[in-house]
Formats: sequence, structure tokens, C-alpha cells
Amino acid sequence: MAPLAISMGEPAGIGPDIILSLYEQRAALGLKPFVVFGHAGFLKERARRLGLDTEIAAVSPHEAEGAFGTALPVMDIAGDVPDQPGRPNGGAAPVVIGAIEEAVAAVTAGTCSGLVTAPIHKGALYEAGFRHPGHTEFLAALCAENGVEPLPVMMLAHEDLRTVPLTIHVPIKDVPGLISVELILETLRVMDRDLKARFGIVRPRIAVAGLNPHAGEGGAIGREEIETIIPALEAARNEGLDVVGPLPGDTLFFPRHWRQYDAVLAMYHDQALIPIKTVAFDAGVNVTLGLPIVRTSPDHGTAFDLAGTGKASTSSFLAAIAMAHQMTAGTP
Amino acid sequence: MAPLAISMGEPAGIGPDIILSLYEQRAALGLKPFVVFGHAGFLKERARRLGLDTEIAAVSPHEAEGAFGTALPVMDIAGDVPDQPGRPNGGAAPVVIGAIEEAVAAVTAGTCSGLVTAPIHKGALYEAGFRHPGHTEFLAALCAENGVEPLPVMMLAHEDLRTVPLTIHVPIKDVPGLISVELILETLRVMDRDLKARFGIVRPRIAVAGLNPHAGEGGAIGREEIETIIPALEAARNEGLDVVGPLPGDTLFFPRHWRQYDAVLAMYHDQALIPIKTVAFDAGVNVTLGLPIVRTSPDHGTAFDLAGTGKASTSSFLAAIAMAHQMTAGTP
Repeated sequence: MAPLAISMGEPAGIGPDIILSLYEQRAALGLKPFVVFGHAGFLKERARRLGLDTEIAAVSPHEAEGAFGTALPVMDIAGDVPDQPGRPNGGAAPVVIGAIEEAVAAVTAGTCSGLVTAPIHKGALYEAGFRHPGHTEFLAALCAENGVEPLPVMMLAHEDLRTVPLTIHVPIKDVPGLISVELILETLRVMDRDLKARFGIVRPRIAVAGLNPHAGEGGAIGREEIETIIPALEAARNEGLDVVGPLPGDTLFFPRHWRQYDAVLAMYHDQALIPIKTVAFDAGVNVTLGLPIVRTSPDHGTAFDLAGTGKASTSSFLAAIAMAHQMTAGTP
Repeated sequence: MAPLAISMGEPAGIGPDIILSLYEQRAALGLKPFVVFGHAGFLKERARRLGLDTEIAAVSPHEAEGAFGTALPVMDIAGDVPDQPGRPNGGAAPVVIGAIEEAVAAVTAGTCSGLVTAPIHKGALYEAGFRHPGHTEFLAALCAENGVEPLPVMMLAHEDLRTVPLTIHVPIKDVPGLISVELILETLRVMDRDLKARFGIVRPRIAVAGLNPHAGEGGAIGREEIETIIPALEAARNEGLDVVGPLPGDTLFFPRHWRQYDAVLAMYHDQALIPIKTVAFDAGVNVTLGLPIVRTSPDHGTAFDLAGTGKASTSSFLAAIAMAHQMTAGTP
């Protein structure tokens, strides 16, 4: 099987630290071969800073498996990447961006099986001309076919709990206006399709949360459930999807309730993320559905204050690797 | 010590079932004496339906302790209450309302130590002329002094996790407009005062969640944090309160984060209730802060479909009793 691709992410953040730490624990953790898309010289420097005597092998993806036992396989992206933990530098942006581009190309070509991305720092990339609203949107653009970008759908996952926020990084006051039948329907289609294709679930059962307290209590506490969410669910059922809702956002997350569903579609960021954080401690995984490639990432950011210290938790990144393997194997 | 008062709540719901069930388990659970404000004849009927041979003693609160070992002490409220599980009946409303009024009077007079309320069904009460928006507002009206009602503050609690929703049963679209410096400040004052007085916490440390994703990310995802929440926290600090925030609503609920605080002030219903439901299964407790009396209630409704079956979980009601004892003892 082709190795996983891991994009190095922001060099001033904790992504490189975690990648190096996981590589050093590869035997104990039983990790399968992966190849890092990034900067070999920088990774060697960061390893030294962390007190690690890691061998780095600049290789192409098909050589990764052979190298993995004795050296960290790196698909080397040319550029200038200083080792400055906590101090993002726009000069490294071409390498950060190039690593993502090359990794997507490798997965698309089949030389890598799936992609795990380390966190990026958008600020540093914007200085260098990056024009995408975020990491995921950039990936969607790279995956465009015939000029048409897929709709990326963010899913948070921890073991059996999977949640999708319908709206993501928007102010709460804008959320009601963004909820539409079309958006709900298209998001449910992506969830249904990828839960089948990537998670091996024969007939995904999806719960949909209401927007308002108690899912609006029949219109007494808001009308979006009646005017938008219920019609969207009816349309989804007419297409054969197994969807239930709108359910009250709070009681839905009683464990005995959410365990009845393969995934939950929430209406906004915190409604989807709070249950994951509460349950998963720091082992949640961010999965992008809707792309032609498998992509996961840890559920944390660059954590500049921890970069270069060796103190960053590897739990979420390790879970992201495990989930990418699970999704590329096509079995639950 | 004076016994706890328990108001019977909606007779068509599960409240009476749970009270009877807990009474029958009083020895195994080590329950201290309580007195039920309700209808003795109805409770006898409901017990019979549940297959329980419960003795009922119509007593006044000061006789409750003596009776408790052999019979369920009931402060009998005159009226007509048919035993019709699942079918609420406006005719029982005077007893339901009278039970709450008498229980509040008993706690206020000191003949009972605190109040645990079983759930009511507002629909049935409205038919009978009840004019309060909810149970808690009714209690605040009953506790008015010199015509001034206290601000009741709803807190959800499970072990060390305590959350307060700033806004409660309002549509999400109205939440941003309801968040004001005055409301945040007054709510924080009530939380600080009652965490000291009722929970024995010397210097309560309160975390405040942001409204928007990532607490607005410095204004990039909404302005309410900058324009309202931060000024309110500054005002609270000027009064000597120990408040932290606004913090992102999701990462705040990593257990290692919320455990640093005695309570969390959330901005809206689901933000406060999702973490409690996720963590507490069905053992969360609803506590009303801000009243001159101690009041707790189970974190569930009337559950008409389970009434009269004996299948309702007693966990939350039992936790509500335990918390009322803890709060009236004045120790953590």
C-alpha cells in the first residue's frame, strides 16, 4: 500500500515537533510508513533542537517504505525555512504551500494513499500572497476538476462520535441567514456518500440538530426549524437518505442518543465542536469530507508557545494518522 | 435540620413516579427526610399503579422527620388530581401551583431547608390562568421582597462542571441583541455571590465563553466579544470578581480547561447545556441561583410517555436532592 502523505505545516508551530516525535516512536506505536512533504534541512534542525538524533532521508514517495525503518522519509521542497519556533516567517510560505500542493498531487496520482495535514498559520501565508480563506478551501481548490471545486465538509471525529458544523467560522448573528435548504441538502449528500465510501457504513444514519434551543419547540423558540431545516430533511429523505431531526442540540448529545447515529449535522461551530472537545479531550480529529482524496488533520492549531519545546501532545495527530489509514483502507 | 421540600410537579408526568421510587429506596440510598408538597390521594393512586405499597402520611413539615421511616410525608394540598399518566389535565393546576406556593413559603419560613421541584407542564397551567413564562420565573415572583423580584440565574451542574446560560429560551437570531454589559455583569454578580454562599467557594473563579467561534478571533469572526463581553468582564473585575474570558466556547470545554474554573458563563442555551449533557449522561442538575431560597430540580421534563410505567430514570432527581442538601449545608 502507498504511504500516507503528511504535509509539514507551519514551521514555527508544533506540527514539525509532533511529526518528529511520532516518527521516533514509530516502533512502539506500530506506525505504518509515511512521507513528510516539507523541508529536510529544517526538519533536521528542529530535531536537533528537540534533542532528537533523527535521520532524515530526502526521498520520493515510492522510496518511503524502504527508508522508514531507519530515516524519516521527506519529500524535500526547495526553499528557505529557518528554525524559529514561535516566530512565523513569510519567507517560509513557498515551502509550506508547495508541500501541500505536492502532497495533494501525490495522493491524487496514487503514489500516496491519503493526506494528513499539520496546522498552518494563515497570517504568514497571506503575507506571501496566499488568497484562500483557509487550509481546507485551499485543498478544495487543488482538487478542482474541470474548474469545478468540490464542496469540502468539515467533520470532527472521535471514535464513534462524528459531528459536522453546517456553518463554520462565521459570527453567530450571521448563522440564521446562512442556513438554507440547499446547503443542508448538499452537506447531507456529502456526509452520506463519504460515510459509505470512506467509513464503510452501508446505510449512514444521520441526526440533524436544530438551530434554536429545544430545536425551536414547534416554532415557539424560533422558526428556522420549520421554515428551512424540516423541508431540507424531507428533501433528503426523498433522495433516500436516512436522516433524523431536527433534534434539540443539547439532549442529542446525551451519549445514549448520539450513539444511535453514525454522524450528527450541527448548525454552527460550537454546537458541533463542544461535544467533541468534551468527550475527546485532545484526541479529536478533523476530517474533510467531499474531496476526491482522503484528508485528516489534528484538531489543534500551531500553538506557537509550545513549538520547539517538545511538550506538545501528539494524541490528536496520532489519531489523525490512524483515521486516515482507516479511511483509505475503506473499512470501519 | 429541617427537611427538604419537594414539589410534586405535573401529576401526568414522571415526577410523582420518581419521588415514590426514591422514597421506596430511601434506606439503600441513605436519603434524609423530605416532605412532598402535593396531593396525598393522588400519590397513593400512582403508587398503586406502579405496584408500590407505599404508605402516605399527610403531615406538616415539622412532622416529616418522624414519619419518614414508615410513610412518605406529604403536605397535602386540597384539590382534584386524577391519576392519568401522560394526559395532563388543567383541573389539577390549582394543586400543582398551590404545592409550589406552599413549598416556597415553607422554605422561606425555615420549616423546610430547601426546595427540589419536580417538572411541571406549562400548557396545563396556562389553561388554568398561570401567567408566568416558566417555573423559575414563578419562583422568582414568589420570592419577591417589597415587590422587587430577584434575578433568577439558571445553572446546570454535574459534579465539578457548572455552566450558566446567559440567555435561555430565545431563538439564536435574538441572542446577539440580548447580550448586554448589564446582563453579563448582574449574572456574574449572582454567580459569584451564590457560589460563595451556597457552595462554600471562597473566591469563585468564573470563565466566560465568547459568543462567536473562537471567541470572535479578535474581531475577525464577530464583534460582540470586543463591544460587550470584554467591557462587562472589565467592569466585573473592577468589582473584585475573578473572571476570565471571553474564551472560545469549544476549547473551554476540554475537561482540563473547565476544571480550572468553578463555573462557566455561556452565552446561550446549547453552549451551556451541551457540555453538561455530554458529560453527565442523565445525572445533571438544574440549580436556580439568585433566589433567597435554595432550589434545585432534575434536568429533565415531564416525559409523558414514561409516566406511570416505572421506567423513568431517578438519577437526575437523586442528584438534585443531593445538591440541595449540599447547598443547604453550606459546604462544598
